[in-house]
Amino acid sequence: MTPDERAAAFRSATRTLRAHGVRVPRAVLAAMAEEAGDESADVYGRGALIEGFEREVAALLGKPAAVFVPSGTMAQQVALRIAADARGLRTVAFHPTCHLEVHEQRGYAHLHGLVARLVGAPRRPVLRADLDALDEPVAALLLELPQREIGGVLPPWTEVEAMTAWARERGVALHLDGARLWETTPFYGKALAEVAAPFDTVYVSFYKILGGIAGAALLGDEPTIAHARVWLRRLGGNLVSQYPQVLAARAGLRDRLPRIPGYVERARRVALQLEEVGARVSPSPPHTNMMHVAFPFEPDALLDASAAVARDRGVALVGFARPTEVPGWCVTELVIGDAAAEIEDAELASLLRELVERA
Amino acid sequence: MTPDERAAAFRSATRTLRAHGVRVPRAVLAAMAEEAGDESADVYGRGALIEGFEREVAALLGKPAAVFVPSGTMAQQVALRIAADARGLRTVAFHPTCHLEVHEQRGYAHLHGLVARLVGAPRRPVLRADLDALDEPVAALLLELPQREIGGVLPPWTEVEAMTAWARERGVALHLDGARLWETTPFYGKALAEVAAPFDTVYVSFYKILGGIAGAALLGDEPTIAHARVWLRRLGGNLVSQYPQVLAARAGLRDRLPRIPGYVERARRVALQLEEVGARVSPSPPHTNMMHVAFPFEPDALLDASAAVARDRGVALVGFARPTEVPGWCVTELVIGDAAAEIEDAELASLLRELVERA
Repeated sequence: MTPDERAAAFRSATRTLRAHGVRVPRAVLAAMAEEAGDESADVYGRGALIEGFEREVAALLGKPAAVFVPSGTMAQQVALRIAADARGLRTVAFHPTCHLEVHEQRGYAHLHGLVARLVGAPRRPVLRADLDALDEPVAALLLELPQREIGGVLPPWTEVEAMTAWARERGVALHLDGARLWETTPFYGKALAEVAAPFDTVYVSFYKILGGIAGAALLGDEPTIAHARVWLRRLGGNLVSQYPQVLAARAGLRDRLPRIPGYVERARRVALQLEEVGARVSPSPPHTNMMHVAFPFEPDALLDASAAVARDRGVALVGFARPTEVPGWCVTELVIGDAAAEIEDAELASLLRELVERA
Repeated sequence: MTPDERAAAFRSATRTLRAHGVRVPRAVLAAMAEEAGDESADVYGRGALIEGFEREVAALLGKPAAVFVPSGTMAQQVALRIAADARGLRTVAFHPTCHLEVHEQRGYAHLHGLVARLVGAPRRPVLRADLDALDEPVAALLLELPQREIGGVLPPWTEVEAMTAWARERGVALHLDGARLWETTPFYGKALAEVAAPFDTVYVSFYKILGGIAGAALLGDEPTIAHARVWLRRLGGNLVSQYPQVLAARAGLRDRLPRIPGYVERARRVALQLEEVGARVSPSPPHTNMMHVAFPFEPDALLDASAAVARDRGVALVGFARPTEVPGWCVTELVIGDAAAEIEDAELASLLRELVERA
């Protein structure tokens, strides 16, 4: 298929296995108009709507304070900058696949003069042993729970505790990249506030599994968040109004957070079905509602097959795939959200069989 | 009056002299749902909606390229950073009341290692003579047209041309803070693209007179704007979706830009009426639809009188005032937009007389 044919096939699908499906601006905006009720616009971070939501998120995560931030990039750089400045030390530690390392064009260095010390191995999360092997002081340690770029892997909770102890003993700031923190509770069997408790600062995202428009929050103690607000002015992140983002975040937290255990349960069933047709799932079973799925095909073969299934059966299964270091195998990321509920287990089994037969 | 009584009085007003009045999220979002039609969401800066709007703005301002940016703070720092890095020089020149100097917590220094060289006197715009007196090299010169913090003053066009020549001769990057550029065309008798023409980079805002939700654009040549997109990733300004902001900006450009000559004309009439009741307007006559208005009262006396008029006549005239260096005189900023159209000249004259009688 040509790229255009493939795109047309995917567009023709009426259902998808992935996340929450396509967001339609008109529908989202109409829903947010209802959500707004009689509330007033926020103005440069002030107002009942945004401040009330910040308090709600802080309470949910058990932190004294929260600030709504346009992006996670901004939230995390600010947390690390504050920790580094407080310690007079520019080195910060994180995993080789950390968002700051792979998706932010080295903003931490160009804007904040920070230097990264990578810890842990690329294909597994950071563990206490990695920290014990660290041979230089660092101002802060960033842990990502779950680790997105390796399929949403979570380290055992005993490792989180051991890493917390390491940081506390050394006065190292502990920051949580919680872009997908919402999805960790079934694996750990803990409340969100319990997962967040060891961390000095926490970033959470509202537009991923919660299905918001954009935006994030940074949480921590009162002085740190007050300081973060100064940095948001510097960064151009103290926007005149963010009410569409705040309203969508609030609706997502209310409507989708309770569904996450169901997403995770379904993800585990989907993983078994994928393995039955010859795919390899990582981690297996999934720790959250996310997984990496390896198929014994070239990317183009898999995508053509997926496009053909989308065209003929109306269901989009795999939307992208990239080559791996194993010749003949490609990998895709799969996130289970609302959309999968429209596909019964039996139908999915049949669709997956057809996918691999056509690849 | 207590602050609460004053706030209640202003809330009770059904009309206002100022700008476009209060924005109600529910109404804005419902209107944006209509505006969205069948358009798709932008994803990390890509998509027909945002790219089409960027082209529209670039064409209107006669520049090769534009990028939609969450905030002007971000847009302007990026423009200056790129100019400074290209020249290997950290010093940038701007007016003492420049937004970077007074509203951004010195982000230019903390994030970009830039050092400000202030040029010109606080109570008038930068002029060519100020540049001739400059005794050190600078990487960039930022000019704000109109200069907001002194009432929206515009330098004569011959001065803009003379400053352009100065910058060209020295290889100094010329950046336009055009937060209120939309309002300059009646004064200069020039099209927007003509006003923007001398500048290497231009920032414009969509949420001020255009009445958008938030957001700005940075314009320049193709390589500069491509480079700016890298900086937006670093700054956390490459948001997953900005369609509410883009739709509102597009609607504002379509609906409000044509009304600006009318706003400016009305502002000049309002200025005369203010002067008739003893206020002093600056600049007089206004260069744009904005002015500073000095009243021979203490701030509290003026605000109490304004609150009383709001309560008794239902019209909010002056919403804030600050002391000046002249004892007994306070000053407020007035921007004329859609809202003033609901107040006839004769009624306004009567309301202004009542205001000063009660102060």
